[in-house]
Amino acid sequence: MELNERQTKIIEIVKNNEPITGEKIASTLGFSRATLRPDLSLLTLSELLIAKPKVGYFYNAHRVDPFIIKAIKEKKVEDVMSVPVIVSSNTSIQDTIIKMFLEDVGSVYVTENHSLIGLVSRKDLLKAVMGKMNIEEMPVSMAMTRVPNVVYVLSNDSVEYATKKLLAHEVDSLPVIDNSDGKGSEGLKVTGKFSKTLISRLFLNVIENEI
Amino acid sequence: MELNERQTKIIEIVKNNEPITGEKIASTLGFSRATLRPDLSLLTLSELLIAKPKVGYFYNAHRVDPFIIKAIKEKKVEDVMSVPVIVSSNTSIQDTIIKMFLEDVGSVYVTENHSLIGLVSRKDLLKAVMGKMNIEEMPVSMAMTRVPNVVYVLSNDSVEYATKKLLAHEVDSLPVIDNSDGKGSEGLKVTGKFSKTLISRLFLNVIENEI
Repeated sequence: MELNERQTKIIEIVKNNEPITGEKIASTLGFSRATLRPDLSLLTLSELLIAKPKVGYFYNAHRVDPFIIKAIKEKKVEDVMSVPVIVSSNTSIQDTIIKMFLEDVGSVYVTENHSLIGLVSRKDLLKAVMGKMNIEEMPVSMAMTRVPNVVYVLSNDSVEYATKKLLAHEVDSLPVIDNSDGKGSEGLKVTGKFSKTLISRLFLNVIENEI
Repeated sequence: MELNERQTKIIEIVKNNEPITGEKIASTLGFSRATLRPDLSLLTLSELLIAKPKVGYFYNAHRVDPFIIKAIKEKKVEDVMSVPVIVSSNTSIQDTIIKMFLEDVGSVYVTENHSLIGLVSRKDLLKAVMGKMNIEEMPVSMAMTRVPNVVYVLSNDSVEYATKKLLAHEVDSLPVIDNSDGKGSEGLKVTGKFSKTLISRLFLNVIENEI
């Protein structure tokens, strides 16, 4: 919504003097109350100002840009995803754990010929170690959750859809698969990671009205 | 914002027929275009309808309740927190790992005389196991992060503040401490858990406009 100069001035006055009556705003600007009526009703209707009877006008600091949610809804996974940590399927469980500590991530994606074949989380690795697996010799593929049981999203899925999927499956992150070439034959090409950390950052952006 | 019956009808018509011209809305309702002018300008100013010149009116499905962000900002940690999993400090590391698997959580809070003394995550436990600790004998207090190095929030902190704290410290969850009695002498009484999962759910609520 575009405001004219007078409307912008009114907002400034209210911001600095709230609560302030219509009469007071008018006298500050040197206009009559009647002249300002259309401006004040526009600013109230658009919820930039809040009018309290017998008190005056307040500035609505919590007014949300009405398009902020639209902007978020239009965001694709590829717009927000982070860089995934990947190991090849013949990496030992021990080396995978070390890599996880070095990179400080909670899950690692396992590939074979650049295609996603599985996912291993701290929980899977803890289970492997507790189950007395020979972690120095055994490959990570013995401890991982294997495709097709891995839940993933596509790079052009919406952030909203990915968030729902992540919550529904109760996982901390989802591998992002690039399907831009439209070919399924070459397997699942991992290009990113969609996580609760990303969502938490987006949440903060939304409530601070900064997209 | 309260709509009258005619305004509600206009919204219904636009929803079902968008884009639709002012003339068409007027003829559907059996009013003149001039009669509807104030309603249409109110609905456009409040951004419930979007007017496109030479095309007509659209319903703004992405319009956000301007108070939704205010509602979220006013939420306290205690309004959204979940139930924490707690072990006492003399529990063995092995029993703690088992408890973590049974409850399917990523971190467990450690208490002594009902006061928080530490926090242990899957990462800490994996480290303990890899470090060849005697996990059957050793108490969890040997593997945990100890207070005062544990980052926590108070039950009456805002959700916004807690989200910032969680992201700043790069942790998955924060213990929630009840400070309602105002006494520090009895230690930190854990009453909840604030996690990225909770934030992700709030995020979904906000973008679906359902608080």
